[in-house]
Amino acid sequence: MTDPARQEQASPEVQKRIQESFDRQGLMAHLGARISHMAPGRVHIVLPARPEVTQQHGYFHAGATSAIADSAGGYAAYTLFPEDTDVLTVEYKINLLAPAVGAHIEAIGTVLKSGRTLTVCQLEVYGVQADGERRLVANGQQTLIRVNKPAQ
Amino acid sequence: MTDPARQEQASPEVQKRIQESFDRQGLMAHLGARISHMAPGRVHIVLPARPEVTQQHGYFHAGATSAIADSAGGYAAYTLFPEDTDVLTVEYKINLLAPAVGAHIEAIGTVLKSGRTLTVCQLEVYGVQADGERRLVANGQQTLIRVNKPAQ
Amino acid sequence: MTDPARQEQASPEVQKRIQESFDRQGLMAHLGARISHMAPGRVHIVLPARPEVTQQHGYFHAGATSAIADSAGGYAAYTLFPEDTDVLTVEYKINLLAPAVGAHIEAIGTVLKSGRTLTVCQLEVYGVQADGERRLVANGQQTLIRVNKPAQ
Amino acid sequence: MTDPARQEQASPEVQKRIQESFDRQGLMAHLGARISHMAPGRVHIVLPARPEVTQQHGYFHAGATSAIADSAGGYAAYTLFPEDTDVLTVEYKINLLAPAVGAHIEAIGTVLKSGRTLTVCQLEVYGVQADGERRLVANGQQTLIRVNKPAQ
Repeated sequence: MTDPARQEQASPEVQKRIQESFDRQGLMAHLGARISHMAPGRVHIVLPARPEVTQQHGYFHAGATSAIADSAGGYAAYTLFPEDTDVLTVEYKINLLAPAVGAHIEAIGTVLKSGRTLTVCQLEVYGVQADGERRLVANGQQTLIRVNKPAQ
Repeated sequence: MTDPARQEQASPEVQKRIQESFDRQGLMAHLGARISHMAPGRVHIVLPARPEVTQQHGYFHAGATSAIADSAGGYAAYTLFPEDTDVLTVEYKINLLAPAVGAHIEAIGTVLKSGRTLTVCQLEVYGVQADGERRLVANGQQTLIRVNKPAQ
Repeated sequence: MTDPARQEQASPEVQKRIQESFDRQGLMAHLGARISHMAPGRVHIVLPARPEVTQQHGYFHAGATSAIADSAGGYAAYTLFPEDTDVLTVEYKINLLAPAVGAHIEAIGTVLKSGRTLTVCQLEVYGVQADGERRLVANGQQTLIRVNKPAQ
Repeated sequence: MTDPARQEQASPEVQKRIQESFDRQGLMAHLGARISHMAPGRVHIVLPARPEVTQQHGYFHAGATSAIADSAGGYAAYTLFPEDTDVLTVEYKINLLAPAVGAHIEAIGTVLKSGRTLTVCQLEVYGVQADGERRLVANGQQTLIRVNKPAQ
């Protein structure tokens, strides 16, 4: 609540642009993920626990963990891009540090380096218990490319 | 059909063990993925196109692409493990080489190096058109660890 | 000088064990690298600029940057290991964020997660100018494994 | 000797351009590395064993292994670039699969995907015994960017 990093917000225009893009991602809706915070260069995405996102032991599946981490990093980069551009993931690497358990998981994408063509993000995913206890369950690094938006 | 690599099959016991584990992965069912081939050290997973697995441009979401790639590699490693063990993904890295489009995508996990503790897999994902044309859309590398199965 | 993180030191026993291992690395001596700091879970390695470590434009070669990053992460993990063990790099991934220039580069390996078998480190490399100005030139992530030391 | 892949050669112009760039890499000379083969989209670099390239157990240091792998991939990409351009490594990931031992190690960089801006390479490093026996000791994946050569 009092985390100062949380208080910084992306501009309403940027938030609208990102939310609209996110809403077009069929996978995010299908998983049940939602954006929980948008700051310049940092985006948080939350995914609640439910059977549809598990692996064979009932933990969050690495694919679900990675999916929201990838989207969080992509939109973190996108907060810093001009309006007529789009973002594509070039590659990412993720270490699964601990079983991803909790009432929900939260992915945080943070821009490490923003270049004209390429952006590099840090990816973190936390398992969050119902009582708010947080544990780092995955950590990664992602490269993204800025592309011009195709004319519609 | 006549791909010789396709004709090699894992033993019925191994196929059964892997299929049962796969069937417990809520995420794979929720995405609509299925195992299409199991050979010793190599597993294929197919994911048909549908709106529930897309990103903002209607392509397969990198998270869906990665999820089946991660599972294909994990089960490829698992084909070579003894019966009382389990497999966990330590980390993976994936490059998204081209927009993932097609009637379905197919992930192929192949064991590069099988050690006592760690296994390293190559991950490939192809976009497959309705006419069978295939294009490599993602390529990755994954590290897995063998763990003893917890007593039930 | 007043960086509090710098003031924490690994125990003399750990420092001795790591320095002795480092001194056996022919490559580190050949490159001209030296350990500049050892704390529990964090090791710094410095490499001065000279023609022998350059790429074709006169910057530090990515191979030299990676070599000291890999060693810094490996020794950071090693600071937390028991005495009769050894450390091996399983894999690492590194992004080269900017041309590596400066009077020297400094790699910092920091343990993110220390497990019984595997350890995950963050890797950072800074280009440091003669006036002390620092710039992040590479960022990475590394997985290491603890092994029992072979009897001598 | 009769490996057909070996018989394909890059054009004399491309070979000259790459050899000149390689000869400006102070690190490659300092390590004792040399280019052993240049084909379109594939470059081999050899590094003979000597104490100056070892880690603490006398094996090839991961930093030396990575350095020649990175250069092999970079020059593999460069074989496919137009003349007035240059290549930079964006990032790479490498798994160290086995102790790197042998009379020499040989890195092979192979282009997986060549795009207008980005190129993705596969990296392999083999330990080669005096009798010619080869073993895969490292495997990786690398992203490179094409840049315009600065005016001289």
